[in-house]
Amino acid sequence: MAETESPIRLGIVGCANIARKVARAINLAPNSVLHAIGSRSIEKAKQFATVNGFPESVKIYGNYEQVLEDPFVDAVYMPLPTSLHVHWAVMAAKKGKHLLIEKPTALDVGELDRILETCESNGVQFMDGSMWLHHPRTVKMKQMLFDSKLLGDVNYVYSTSTTAASPEFMENDIRVKPKLDALGALGDIGWYCLGAVLWAKNYQLPTVVTALPDVTKNSNGVIISCSASIQYRQPDGTKTDAIIHCSFLCNTSMDLAITGSRGTINLNDFIIPYQESSASFEFTLGAKFVELHIGWNVKPEKIVVASELPQEALMVQEFARLVEGIKTYGFLPDRKWPEISRKTQLLLDAVKKSVDLGCKPVYF
Amino acid sequence: MAETESPIRLGIVGCANIARKVARAINLAPNSVLHAIGSRSIEKAKQFATVNGFPESVKIYGNYEQVLEDPFVDAVYMPLPTSLHVHWAVMAAKKGKHLLIEKPTALDVGELDRILETCESNGVQFMDGSMWLHHPRTVKMKQMLFDSKLLGDVNYVYSTSTTAASPEFMENDIRVKPKLDALGALGDIGWYCLGAVLWAKNYQLPTVVTALPDVTKNSNGVIISCSASIQYRQPDGTKTDAIIHCSFLCNTSMDLAITGSRGTINLNDFIIPYQESSASFEFTLGAKFVELHIGWNVKPEKIVVASELPQEALMVQEFARLVEGIKTYGFLPDRKWPEISRKTQLLLDAVKKSVDLGCKPVYF
Repeated sequence: MAETESPIRLGIVGCANIARKVARAINLAPNSVLHAIGSRSIEKAKQFATVNGFPESVKIYGNYEQVLEDPFVDAVYMPLPTSLHVHWAVMAAKKGKHLLIEKPTALDVGELDRILETCESNGVQFMDGSMWLHHPRTVKMKQMLFDSKLLGDVNYVYSTSTTAASPEFMENDIRVKPKLDALGALGDIGWYCLGAVLWAKNYQLPTVVTALPDVTKNSNGVIISCSASIQYRQPDGTKTDAIIHCSFLCNTSMDLAITGSRGTINLNDFIIPYQESSASFEFTLGAKFVELHIGWNVKPEKIVVASELPQEALMVQEFARLVEGIKTYGFLPDRKWPEISRKTQLLLDAVKKSVDLGCKPVYF
Repeated sequence: MAETESPIRLGIVGCANIARKVARAINLAPNSVLHAIGSRSIEKAKQFATVNGFPESVKIYGNYEQVLEDPFVDAVYMPLPTSLHVHWAVMAAKKGKHLLIEKPTALDVGELDRILETCESNGVQFMDGSMWLHHPRTVKMKQMLFDSKLLGDVNYVYSTSTTAASPEFMENDIRVKPKLDALGALGDIGWYCLGAVLWAKNYQLPTVVTALPDVTKNSNGVIISCSASIQYRQPDGTKTDAIIHCSFLCNTSMDLAITGSRGTINLNDFIIPYQESSASFEFTLGAKFVELHIGWNVKPEKIVVASELPQEALMVQEFARLVEGIKTYGFLPDRKWPEISRKTQLLLDAVKKSVDLGCKPVYF
């Protein structure tokens, strides 16, 4: 549904499952179009195109290089295993392709910096695939978070991202293979929790991070479940504490609770909303107990936010909008999105380091 | 509203604010009646009786001893500062008074054991004031927790109890005074979180407990905010992790989330329901993502449970029922409630010890 005159043409590098969702999003976004798909095998790429009903106009390549070399590809979406990111992302940026890359962005911030520096020096846009940040519900919550009359100072953030992985996943998925996604559950789904903490703190980095002793690794040493305490301590004595929990061993949850000095926000589907058309969260302002403590003075208010497009299509739309600005109007790449990615990666690195140190605190 | 022929006569020892709520509950419960109130000063006791509209039949004493010596008092409700519990609870039990005591039950399990042993040797009932355990919603959740077809094995429990204390509370309340309630927020409100973890695990004690580094103490060294990681590890490899957070520095929250292998339970008012007449929780069974991960296959089901009496009246009713059994039918005191208290105290002691050790793990 390309509604602009010259929609941004995206190439997809890799046929991961998530690419199916993003291919649909590229189609739904009004300013982008799917131009090419590349896989390590032409058969896999063809099958992927057929299964997902891509039109014949979509180029199908039997390797990643050809996507990056296709002069009609403006930007690439890269859902490759994390360990391959630095190689292919740097190559894409060098070839002037704008980059929408799956999370975790890299194995560590050193790798990410190589990607970001290449993007910067080649004038290409960088954005990671944190779809929830683009949902209008997220925007609405942020407005309430930073309205000083509402939530007040953020005192506490709690976030989970858990999924009960199948035995087949736990055996074979790239996300539990040390050579492919060495960050395991922390990288794949903990990324969202860490991102949510940073988001709630307006991307301020914490003072200290400590992994909890509940970490579980698989036989290859990959984290499949862990938690972390994230502390913000200001010189004036104010503080924020956050706790995150991510696990491949636990039934689906994606809870986000933010407690401010005057109000709270609660939701249980912050990463993937229950349904596409609208999403909600609960907000409680000035909760106190009534006389005799036999109830509350207020009940949570359910705030529903409609979404005209799925959040992943909004993400692609925002990405394509920035690419359009660079391509057509000569704007500089937007710095907000790479900064968000980099801080999330820094926080992830700190949790990983704390896990590796046996849950010792890691200071920023 | 004493509907039985000979309702159990309760004496209240101490005029704490919470005593007003429990006095009302004694009145509401069909098998109990308020017989006496004692305070350190007769004026305070008289004022308390007037403010709360006690009938003239209620005896008013200017000390605690007279309540315990009143031969018409079957049982006492004891909302004294924690540090006074062991003295007065032991004295009450020695005088044959059944004991409903506020939480935390004692400063440590050693003190609690002195109380429990005295209750046992004097044949009196013991129960602590954890009201939420008596709500029919709690009973309903427990049924679902232990229905093997529903939630499955409990993998994860998260619980908070927070309240933004006023500057006046933080300065003067007994709950932040080392000589009165040395356990601070951990004892006063962390008790509920720890109790909820044990409740969800059917009162199995954990393997190891570790306080999180986010602990905050006041200038007297009393805990005013802390968190803990509670781990269950079975020889067969199964595990449950729990995280609790309690704070006097954070806006009102009382969240309980239980994630099982097949379903989740979520509620945000587990200690004091929003309203008295009914309470609810959300239950999600078999949550998965739909094709393309663009939503969930199920949405949480809201389960509403009506309550004919407030939970504190149900607590008093259950307590009075047990006392009636002992008094009238010669039954032995029920062992369930003291065991629940003792395990909660043991867990609390472990968290406190971990805090005192600088967040070192404490093994059971």
